[in-house]
Amino acid sequence: MMARVRVPASSSNLGAGFDCIGIAVDRWLVASVTLGGTGISIRRRGTLSAVRVRADQDLFTRGFRAACAAAGAPAAGGGATIEAVSDIPVGCGLGSSAAAIVAGALLADAALELGLSRAKILEIATTIEGHPDNVAPAIHGGAVLSIHTPAGLVSSSLRVSPAIELLIAVPPFPNDTKAARAALPHTLPHSDAVVAASRAAALVQGLATGDGALLGAALDDVLHVPFRRARIRGYDAVVAAAQGAGAFGATLSGAGSAIVAIAPRDRSASVGSAMIAAWRDSGIEAELIKCTSTVAGATVIAATHDVRRTTHDSTVIKELL
Amino acid sequence: MMARVRVPASSSNLGAGFDCIGIAVDRWLVASVTLGGTGISIRRRGTLSAVRVRADQDLFTRGFRAACAAAGAPAAGGGATIEAVSDIPVGCGLGSSAAAIVAGALLADAALELGLSRAKILEIATTIEGHPDNVAPAIHGGAVLSIHTPAGLVSSSLRVSPAIELLIAVPPFPNDTKAARAALPHTLPHSDAVVAASRAAALVQGLATGDGALLGAALDDVLHVPFRRARIRGYDAVVAAAQGAGAFGATLSGAGSAIVAIAPRDRSASVGSAMIAAWRDSGIEAELIKCTSTVAGATVIAATHDVRRTTHDSTVIKELL
Repeated sequence: MMARVRVPASSSNLGAGFDCIGIAVDRWLVASVTLGGTGISIRRRGTLSAVRVRADQDLFTRGFRAACAAAGAPAAGGGATIEAVSDIPVGCGLGSSAAAIVAGALLADAALELGLSRAKILEIATTIEGHPDNVAPAIHGGAVLSIHTPAGLVSSSLRVSPAIELLIAVPPFPNDTKAARAALPHTLPHSDAVVAASRAAALVQGLATGDGALLGAALDDVLHVPFRRARIRGYDAVVAAAQGAGAFGATLSGAGSAIVAIAPRDRSASVGSAMIAAWRDSGIEAELIKCTSTVAGATVIAATHDVRRTTHDSTVIKELL
Repeated sequence: MMARVRVPASSSNLGAGFDCIGIAVDRWLVASVTLGGTGISIRRRGTLSAVRVRADQDLFTRGFRAACAAAGAPAAGGGATIEAVSDIPVGCGLGSSAAAIVAGALLADAALELGLSRAKILEIATTIEGHPDNVAPAIHGGAVLSIHTPAGLVSSSLRVSPAIELLIAVPPFPNDTKAARAALPHTLPHSDAVVAASRAAALVQGLATGDGALLGAALDDVLHVPFRRARIRGYDAVVAAAQGAGAFGATLSGAGSAIVAIAPRDRSASVGSAMIAAWRDSGIEAELIKCTSTVAGATVIAATHDVRRTTHDSTVIKELL
């Protein structure tokens, strides 16, 4: 049995949606699994080539094994070979880790016919990742709100106005996610928490309506960005350039290093150029990802034949498995 | 010149929407103004009968004068008599103060033909009230999110699922709003602020979709209710009774004393009864207000003749001016 999966990148937080809101981004990880042998082996290409982790500690493996465990199946079903290729920048706040975990879990589910629901896959992947904000859009596509409730994790697809566009500028250096989390304070003034809550509400309403004033407030977060932005060289200049070119606002994608702007559709070209130019002024050659809110979630094909050679997605990812 | 205005009650916060979200409630304040004489005099009826404030410090007067000042008109236009009647409980977290301020400002605008926009009325009334969460639904009707931005206060009408209903139980004792605000802590753990933000996002999304899990999380606030609920005798029992009868959740209306539940439409009758019964068990005879999300905002009639005798609204308020 073989299976193949395609999982999108994602941009989490979007300012005030800290640890709970993310949106799928038009970059992709494609992975396939062939069952057999002993243990799990992994071959990585594209942006994953630089990953240096032992196969048994790899995020594909962890997702794969967690799915097996959740279904009560023997670990790795006796052995598997995973081949993965990705054009998602690694370590830049675009959900590369979440995509790998989700891919591993979905490959196990499909190849071993575990029958896990998407809600269960979300739960499994969130447990490994630590929070659901990248995992949920990687699975469901579009923008997703995920909330911890006494009855478990609840995800809800957010309405996103077709009048807005995301511009993501990705510098050629990663961010240290653990250090970015350690930079957060232990307490906040109550008044800041009140502002943070109102802006999280503004993010949901701003995405739905495309209201620029709401989105501007939502992208100006007080929960995490003030403590993290100094870690990203050029942050203030790139955000100011995006706003100057007509974006409603801009902020860190995840914990960075990428910076995401939200702009009216007719300003997106100039906003993207302005962000790249601002980083270039600091000697940094960033890459631009433009995308709308309609990026699909993970898709899976399970088959008894070799799916590596039968499925083509050439418009999205050049180098297929 | 005369004018008459009709302004709804409102329930603010709705759990996690602290100081930024409110919803119009089907109780009404009706007021009219007759210009002439010197100074402002006020006659109050209905729930306003118990208000003991000098006319020049009354909230109608403050709204009226602030509107005049904002338009550069002479204070009170030379003098005015305001007659007001209301069936909005006073001091129970149902926006009676906001309704009076909005009424005063709208009466000035209409009778003196000041030409103020609703956005300007919102700004004027918010300055007097201190926050916009009751003022905005009193003006616009329905549920409204209000956000402070560098460009001023922005209000946005929230979508509310027709599948949900509000049940508000009002005890026969008011709350001390100032003391309720003083009960809030100066700082919060960062992790609580993160939860608070996610639940504010859940409130906007839950209202729009009617998703019970999201609404349940949203009504379980961590920013203000934990520090205020002990002030309202019977709070825990009434909230538990509402949930037990099928509500998604329940919380303080504003800072209390009223408690608001959100329930699926087909459970609203049993939820309302359960809340009243729970308070009765503590010896408290509460009053129930049931309402949907479609309550209109303030409406104004300006006329050269006596509008007190020409306009009838007998289904909404029995005692007209």
